[in-house]
Amino acid sequence: MDVNEKYFSNITKRERAIFEGGISMGALFHQFVGTPVNESTRENLERTIEDSFKLQPAIEDVEVKINLNDNTEFDYISLSGDMLDVRIHTAVDDVKAVIRIEFIEELNYPLMYVEEI
Amino acid sequence: MDVNEKYFSNITKRERAIFEGGISMGALFHQFVGTPVNESTRENLERTIEDSFKLQPAIEDVEVKINLNDNTEFDYISLSGDMLDVRIHTAVDDVKAVIRIEFIEELNYPLMYVEEI
Amino acid sequence: MDVNEKYFSNITKRERAIFEGGISMGALFHQFVGTPVNESTRENLERTIEDSFKLQPAIEDVEVKINLNDNTEFDYISLSGDMLDVRIHTAVDDVKAVIRIEFIEELNYPLMYVEEI
Amino acid sequence: MDVNEKYFSNITKRERAIFEGGISMGALFHQFVGTPVNESTRENLERTIEDSFKLQPAIEDVEVKINLNDNTEFDYISLSGDMLDVRIHTAVDDVKAVIRIEFIEELNYPLMYVEEI
Repeated sequence: MDVNEKYFSNITKRERAIFEGGISMGALFHQFVGTPVNESTRENLERTIEDSFKLQPAIEDVEVKINLNDNTEFDYISLSGDMLDVRIHTAVDDVKAVIRIEFIEELNYPLMYVEEI
Repeated sequence: MDVNEKYFSNITKRERAIFEGGISMGALFHQFVGTPVNESTRENLERTIEDSFKLQPAIEDVEVKINLNDNTEFDYISLSGDMLDVRIHTAVDDVKAVIRIEFIEELNYPLMYVEEI
Repeated sequence: MDVNEKYFSNITKRERAIFEGGISMGALFHQFVGTPVNESTRENLERTIEDSFKLQPAIEDVEVKINLNDNTEFDYISLSGDMLDVRIHTAVDDVKAVIRIEFIEELNYPLMYVEEI
Repeated sequence: MDVNEKYFSNITKRERAIFEGGISMGALFHQFVGTPVNESTRENLERTIEDSFKLQPAIEDVEVKINLNDNTEFDYISLSGDMLDVRIHTAVDDVKAVIRIEFIEELNYPLMYVEEI
């Protein structure tokens, strides 16, 4: 069975690049929110999140930055969506997209959007 | 700030409907996989997953079916992706999409795709 | 095989009641943190969390209260550990325990402890 | 406030070592189940799980082994509880415990128990 032919012929390559990036961004957020983290484990956790989601379909690269901000009073904290600054790069043939999540001060919540297409 | 104007003017309504549905499908999978479930709790869990993800942007409706299959020997099992049959209905103005996850026998894994657009 | 005989004969009934309650409390926190929730879905989510974890070994009852506090500006928020007030009642034969998580103002984080034994 | 005095004086050091280990084992399972993994990312994911849960109270060491078994036909799979072989070492003053999860063939599910105390 040709999966692409059977299940994805109803959308364009551009739409597929957006779709797969959206899936992985939603997945990444809900998989890792809650993980214990502090400054000593931050970088390795960022790399592991990147490597885990680079495995998913059409994902070319993942860049994760965790902002611990001013939570220095605690031994560790639970990772929350507000701390995430992530770019997921997708590619479907020659079409590339970058999906972003970042905390927007004005909205007071982390927004997921298509940064480049 | 007009969020749509500032962050989503680079994609079409059709692309936005696909994007938001992809996000919610990836999120749903990774949020609830691992939840203890058996036949007595299945229906209420399905409704709670539906209600939780209907809260997300552009989501009009969510239909969740959990297939416990032949796991009758256990008091309960951990929800896995293979058990999920979900349709997420998105709407951006007049454009509607249905995002689906279902276990595909031939692939031997659960596939996420755009069922209707 | 007698599981209790083989794997749990090295601890007392009291210790087992504490152990199983600790497992379920850690599990509950990390399973559901991140779930989208607002006032309209709060009660049903509480019931689903209760029902899901009542399935685990030695769990007699679970009481979940989600405190949405002053997050009224948002359409919904992601469930965080700070919002959880939970009691897990365990029983091993005649020994009963209550494991609690609640946000402690003075600590500024949610604490898990044995409330009754 | 002395947290130990106020919240943990009703249990022994031995019980506390079992309690904290139980919490972290339940947490670890439900936090990471669902994570995409394959042979190329397995080791780094194991180290990240170890480092994340070493941050929690009374945890002295964590040893994680992920068994991918015969899932070689897939580009990657979702981490499931059946793949986990984990030892969590806790210490409360001079009392030490080892909490274990491992898949037990005879039970056909992963069991959490106190391996050493």
